[in-house]
Amino acid sequence: MLTAIDHTGIAVPDIDASLSYYRDVLKLPLVHRETVTEQGVDAVLFEIGDSHLELIAPLGPETGVAKFLERRGPGLHHVAYRVDDIEATVAALAAAGVRLIDATPRAGIRGSRVAFLHPASTGGVLTEIVEPAAH
Amino acid sequence: MLTAIDHTGIAVPDIDASLSYYRDVLKLPLVHRETVTEQGVDAVLFEIGDSHLELIAPLGPETGVAKFLERRGPGLHHVAYRVDDIEATVAALAAAGVRLIDATPRAGIRGSRVAFLHPASTGGVLTEIVEPAAH
Repeated sequence: MLTAIDHTGIAVPDIDASLSYYRDVLKLPLVHRETVTEQGVDAVLFEIGDSHLELIAPLGPETGVAKFLERRGPGLHHVAYRVDDIEATVAALAAAGVRLIDATPRAGIRGSRVAFLHPASTGGVLTEIVEPAAH
Repeated sequence: MLTAIDHTGIAVPDIDASLSYYRDVLKLPLVHRETVTEQGVDAVLFEIGDSHLELIAPLGPETGVAKFLERRGPGLHHVAYRVDDIEATVAALAAAGVRLIDATPRAGIRGSRVAFLHPASTGGVLTEIVEPAAH
């Protein structure tokens, strides 16, 4: 069902101020940058092996990520699992009793389709299911 | 330098109470269980693609993970990057100005050698460098 950690999401106050650590210190390639309006974030992806680190910064003070930063400060925000069939995965998780934030997949970064699971069902871990865009 | 996300670390109050979600709902294989005394945790590894989820539960109330749980509740705790040569990586990071929790690698789970970086140098992300045991 889950084939990989698609990415680990990291909340930052400012994307540009955060690039240098990942690019120049950790030496990871920056492979994508996008404003994901549906999620209220500016985002970049750094590639690491078969996975990514996704830095997300809030587009405005009312976004979920702005509230997260206010409450907890910058740091680990969510984990995203890669799947081949997001509809089947979401249906299986709902049938297993998992509370969904998104019952229907929505647009994610880089043409992916995504659905978030509620931390109340996942031991406090904000969890994203990702079906990448077809290649 | 960094070849993969070796694992994402998730703090839980109790390992046994947390197994069912990962094993029965997410359908991930449990591949390892160990008490890592050096880190004050009981730990299990679930395999996902080329990576792992590591659940960690505190061995006692004075451990770092117990304090984390008290302060922030269960959830994402750290991210671990896999490397081929931990001494060279730690030296390069120190030379780049990264503050280290472990200047010298210590024993990690499953025969690995690990070093933690200080969140003050990593944008609030508790970060572990892992050189797996030789196969």
